[in-house]
Amino acid sequence: MPLAISMGEPAGIGPDLILRLAAEVTGLPEFVVYGAASFMAARSARLGINLQIRTLDWPGEPVPEGCIGVIDVADGIAVADRPGETDTAAAPVVVRAIERAVSDVREGRCSALVTAPIHKGALYSAGFTYPGHTEFLAALCAENGRIPHPVMMLAHERFRAVPATIHVPLHIVSKLITEELITQTVQIVAKDLRDRFGAERARIAVAGLNPHAGEGGTIGVEERDIIAPALDRLRGQGFDLAGPLPGDTLFHPPHWQSYDAVIAMYHDQALIPIKTVAFDKAVNVTLGLPIVRTSPDHGTAFNLAGTGQGSYESMKAAIELAASMSERRN
Amino acid sequence: MPLAISMGEPAGIGPDLILRLAAEVTGLPEFVVYGAASFMAARSARLGINLQIRTLDWPGEPVPEGCIGVIDVADGIAVADRPGETDTAAAPVVVRAIERAVSDVREGRCSALVTAPIHKGALYSAGFTYPGHTEFLAALCAENGRIPHPVMMLAHERFRAVPATIHVPLHIVSKLITEELITQTVQIVAKDLRDRFGAERARIAVAGLNPHAGEGGTIGVEERDIIAPALDRLRGQGFDLAGPLPGDTLFHPPHWQSYDAVIAMYHDQALIPIKTVAFDKAVNVTLGLPIVRTSPDHGTAFNLAGTGQGSYESMKAAIELAASMSERRN
Repeated sequence: MPLAISMGEPAGIGPDLILRLAAEVTGLPEFVVYGAASFMAARSARLGINLQIRTLDWPGEPVPEGCIGVIDVADGIAVADRPGETDTAAAPVVVRAIERAVSDVREGRCSALVTAPIHKGALYSAGFTYPGHTEFLAALCAENGRIPHPVMMLAHERFRAVPATIHVPLHIVSKLITEELITQTVQIVAKDLRDRFGAERARIAVAGLNPHAGEGGTIGVEERDIIAPALDRLRGQGFDLAGPLPGDTLFHPPHWQSYDAVIAMYHDQALIPIKTVAFDKAVNVTLGLPIVRTSPDHGTAFNLAGTGQGSYESMKAAIELAASMSERRN
Repeated sequence: MPLAISMGEPAGIGPDLILRLAAEVTGLPEFVVYGAASFMAARSARLGINLQIRTLDWPGEPVPEGCIGVIDVADGIAVADRPGETDTAAAPVVVRAIERAVSDVREGRCSALVTAPIHKGALYSAGFTYPGHTEFLAALCAENGRIPHPVMMLAHERFRAVPATIHVPLHIVSKLITEELITQTVQIVAKDLRDRFGAERARIAVAGLNPHAGEGGTIGVEERDIIAPALDRLRGQGFDLAGPLPGDTLFHPPHWQSYDAVIAMYHDQALIPIKTVAFDKAVNVTLGLPIVRTSPDHGTAFNLAGTGQGSYESMKAAIELAASMSERRN
């Protein structure tokens, strides 16, 4: 069963990376692209890539050698090949690509979802109302009206970091750190590390919020009053947890790698260390969804779109990790 | 002129590192130790180190081969050699060592100060009232009743990170980020990089406070309302500044190294990346003082004291950097 890759923002680098990977890298897991076939052909020609774009009727359809399979969701919309220039006319295609890919993964026609980067600005003007890609995916995965709680994990080899809060102003992070959030995050991370990464009983470290993890309450009380009690309760339920530990020493590579994952309290606390050790190589994994979803850890990189430049390492790693995750039992 | 090294907490690893460096490493800059001579002799014997402890009358006194020079500030107090066990009786010696070392540096008898780690708990019970080592040093450097604003910088080769706020709970960081703080921090960093690191016109990057540096005001407004205006004003005064930049991409090593220093907004934003790339090797430098001061980036490591174990790389780097900084013009 192939992976589903949503093509993402056509003005960005996502389509380039998909095409370059298909043309240049052998041994990749099988995948099909959800997007606009004529646009993909134009971008391929611009990049001088020797690949045929083959429109598929269904994702499992065999794709001949030298071809890349596309599930065309353009539905009559002409998506222009204009690198770096967003076009609201293309927005419905970008959104539909994601919707169709999610639906095909949920219904077992594809094994997992890899998303190329989107540009929220271009989608908002076309009526997209989600704060981000991940929240949109979570909504598409609703079951019985219940939207799952998505948890972001950045991963590179044994370096895995999970921000418990994500795209919120720093001054409200402290208000969002609750026992419920810590509990839910640990449960989701442990479950998906078991189901998707083979960590039968994941060893997870949890960072403190404050400098030196609060230093016994002298530099902040959230560790003492919220995080430590939540972890104690979870240990009582059998989770293997360390922490709350000082953020600054936790990400020393040998220390970090001794855990299956580290849960950080906020965006930069997780993303600074992963991007410091694995810039352009890390994969963004969404845990907590009923489907496997990965994406590269970078954005649309408008300045590189259409140039053939820019690293495809993160996109390649996202494809490989999605395949590996989906091969494990659910 | 020798460097002054304050011996720090006797129950900790600081004295061990000084002794091991003196015994094992050749070509170190000349230094004298401020502390208790009899204690240093006892710790040296415990570690099986073949060094004579020589009590000096003044720091410039010649020290024979195979000896380590100590300015004895014990003043009749017997400092016990008990690794890992703090003793409030020793506190006045620890404090006096720092006071005497600062005074000798300020008065030109030593070139710079390197401080071994102290244990605040052991000093508080003896009447020490400062929130930390650095604040104590700043107070000792007061001129005409004005205490200088100390700025912490963690440094390893070209990796330099400065937290604009330090040991404060995360939830109040946002309130402390003012134009005045940004301005003062940039001015001190630029001046000391010029005077002490040879960066004639330092190129400094400043991180944002919020995820993605606020993403144009959608994830926090401090960048737009405070940091960016402060930087604009400073650029008008001739400073070479980049930012506010997203914290998560700023510390990618090649990017980071392209600046003479990066100013972060809070403790973990600066200390996570430096400890990720240079754990146990980085040096803590205090900028903004009338003297050069460095220290290792670790604490007292009670569990390693007296064992001969533990890396002396950070202490060694602190000594070497202090010498290099003090050789430059003031």
